[in-house]
Amino acid sequence: MNKIQNITKENLEALCERPKLQTASLEKIVNEIFEDVRLNGDAAVKKYSQKFDGLQPEGAIEIDAETWSAGADEVPEELKSAIRQAKGNIEAFHRVQIKGKVSVETEDGVLCWQESRAIQKVGLYIPGGTAPLFSTVLMLAVPAKLAGCEEIVLCTPPGKDGKIAAPILYAAQLAGVKRVMKVGGIQAIAALTYGTESIPKVYKIFGPGNQYVTAAKKKAFAEGTAIDLPAGPSEVLVLADESANPVFVAADLLSQAEHGTDSQVVCVSDSEPFLVKVQEEVEKQLAVLPRADIASESLKHARFLFSESKEETINFINEYAPEHFILASKDEAYYLENLKNAGSVFIGNYAPESAGDYLSGTNHTLPTNGFARSFGSLGLDDFTKKISFQRISREGLKNIGKSIELMARAEGLEAHAKAVELRMKNEK
Amino acid sequence: MNKIQNITKENLEALCERPKLQTASLEKIVNEIFEDVRLNGDAAVKKYSQKFDGLQPEGAIEIDAETWSAGADEVPEELKSAIRQAKGNIEAFHRVQIKGKVSVETEDGVLCWQESRAIQKVGLYIPGGTAPLFSTVLMLAVPAKLAGCEEIVLCTPPGKDGKIAAPILYAAQLAGVKRVMKVGGIQAIAALTYGTESIPKVYKIFGPGNQYVTAAKKKAFAEGTAIDLPAGPSEVLVLADESANPVFVAADLLSQAEHGTDSQVVCVSDSEPFLVKVQEEVEKQLAVLPRADIASESLKHARFLFSESKEETINFINEYAPEHFILASKDEAYYLENLKNAGSVFIGNYAPESAGDYLSGTNHTLPTNGFARSFGSLGLDDFTKKISFQRISREGLKNIGKSIELMARAEGLEAHAKAVELRMKNEK
Repeated sequence: MNKIQNITKENLEALCERPKLQTASLEKIVNEIFEDVRLNGDAAVKKYSQKFDGLQPEGAIEIDAETWSAGADEVPEELKSAIRQAKGNIEAFHRVQIKGKVSVETEDGVLCWQESRAIQKVGLYIPGGTAPLFSTVLMLAVPAKLAGCEEIVLCTPPGKDGKIAAPILYAAQLAGVKRVMKVGGIQAIAALTYGTESIPKVYKIFGPGNQYVTAAKKKAFAEGTAIDLPAGPSEVLVLADESANPVFVAADLLSQAEHGTDSQVVCVSDSEPFLVKVQEEVEKQLAVLPRADIASESLKHARFLFSESKEETINFINEYAPEHFILASKDEAYYLENLKNAGSVFIGNYAPESAGDYLSGTNHTLPTNGFARSFGSLGLDDFTKKISFQRISREGLKNIGKSIELMARAEGLEAHAKAVELRMKNEK
Repeated sequence: MNKIQNITKENLEALCERPKLQTASLEKIVNEIFEDVRLNGDAAVKKYSQKFDGLQPEGAIEIDAETWSAGADEVPEELKSAIRQAKGNIEAFHRVQIKGKVSVETEDGVLCWQESRAIQKVGLYIPGGTAPLFSTVLMLAVPAKLAGCEEIVLCTPPGKDGKIAAPILYAAQLAGVKRVMKVGGIQAIAALTYGTESIPKVYKIFGPGNQYVTAAKKKAFAEGTAIDLPAGPSEVLVLADESANPVFVAADLLSQAEHGTDSQVVCVSDSEPFLVKVQEEVEKQLAVLPRADIASESLKHARFLFSESKEETINFINEYAPEHFILASKDEAYYLENLKNAGSVFIGNYAPESAGDYLSGTNHTLPTNGFARSFGSLGLDDFTKKISFQRISREGLKNIGKSIELMARAEGLEAHAKAVELRMKNEK
């Protein structure tokens, strides 16, 4: 198991480093597919879906209502009920994020306000691959619906059987997705960017993906379509002291490690014996995991860090800016107060990361790779944009007009000044 | 003057097109300067500042306290007072945007909440060029300060005299900027991205700029530093009917046109005679403008649009998604209710765009080039990120545990299920 390291001023930067991302240039292939989809629409989309996903070109891209509802029905009742419970909690947490307009009369006759209005058309991308991530459907579609997005389109590649996994169809139905497209990869993102005969152009694309999808989302952004978050491998930082349970901590580290070989796992404690116990537990629990291969590969770059100083510890956590931060410490209040950067925080011995991944109600779409320094958790706001409004009366303009003219002229913008001057001259 | 066009289904897309942006590839020069600054820090920054801005390499990059305050003092008292008034209004409008935490107990024992915390380190870029844009200093620094950003660094290139314009220094001092750097262009953005001996690395870069700065901000984003908004040429859409004053409308169109030759100006009305009057007024007012050259170049791609149908008109406006939207119409209520996409809205005959550019209190950093479909006006939120928190009791985990396990296993993530199962087994 990995050596226990001390946090020091000298190694702080190195400890904050993430596993190097694949930097192989995908630009060429991304540009090629985008151009093809832009010019040839559905035909190009089908060509790549056949090539990469083995889909037959004669099949429709959009899932018809019958297939959708038949697929959704296949989900066992027990799982349906769990998905409904998750949906309810996610909805409750995102509902409290709804904001009315805020307004202020900055001067007599100058009323300014801000309103959030929904992004009309959004595209949700749900990866296929090793597991059908139907939980992500809820995390994206529930806030989109709540925000009032008019067009909610979901793209997802089929499994090896050529079908979309039943729980994805069920979650999409439940959450208010309008249309489901059987398409994944770069071609899906290209289609959402430009629009094709079957797939509508959207204004913002959400959702996780592999390096191809991530590169495609960057291209979409360059082409004028907004995207949610810069994506990277998932990560967890657990801060635990003797008040925590090493069995639980080990389980949390493993639940992150099983995500992918590039997942990162960090455990910080003020007790070396505790860290040793966690390591022993990790070994023990790892042995019986179905995804042990992936987890043990990921654990190779796990970090077990010892620090006696609370100041040093919180400083490291803020520098690291973890996507998931599990806080199981008697000094909880200190850390919560001084925390500056994290995506989502799990407090106490009974708050595993998997609670937020599925059921508590918080969003699992979170900033990775240090982006928690500048990006937050996905939320309702990400599906809206804020428009500012101002209503100014003649009296109001009088109160600010002289200053506008002065500032505009000092910036060399005479026509800006004139727009006020001409109004002030007006008798009416 | 430009022909008056009808809005039709057929030309809707064409009418929404913006003047083509310079797409000349700046990537090579941007990559070169970034790499040089990353490796050689201040030395590289100074080299490019000498090359592009004629700065002497022996001079310090950071403005010292004495130079700063002596410069700020040069601003005439009348202008200082205008800047203070603007600062007060901007602060008032951004203060109402402060949000406390929102929280909800989604299940008994499962408490979730969301808090905004400041982005610790921000870099503000203020262009040099033809005019010292000190108003932009207020628009960026006031919300940064209000949000609680700890490190606020401003970069701006000097004028031809080698100095930073006095009103920029004054506005920076007033608004709470901590440090001012005499550096512009690609090298400034590179320095904020990597940090140098003199210039700190920041987590997010804000501010407008020319095509070089915009390309550099894209590179910064690729390197892991967040940026505010995709930048493009400024634009205004005025919707005016016979209740409006053609003199004022013409003045507003010109105040946009004088920004740059690539600025875009659109005027929509349900009255052709009104549009003709506006055009005549534009000609008349243009003649006496100091920046008439720029404005008349920009006016070449101005659009004067006639539409009798309110539905058609609002549909066009929503498709166009204007940065600035001036609404001077007796049907104001209809348009406000059905507006979906715009950056900032100016209502009535006495609300020129220049009010929002300087004094009303709204932010003038706005989405251009159709990005108002997915991005809003810059605001307090852009200087913070939202962190989600969850505190779960043993009882709480019991209420959601079964469903977590079911969903995790259905996604093939056994360790996620185990993190709950092991906790539930625990006696304590």
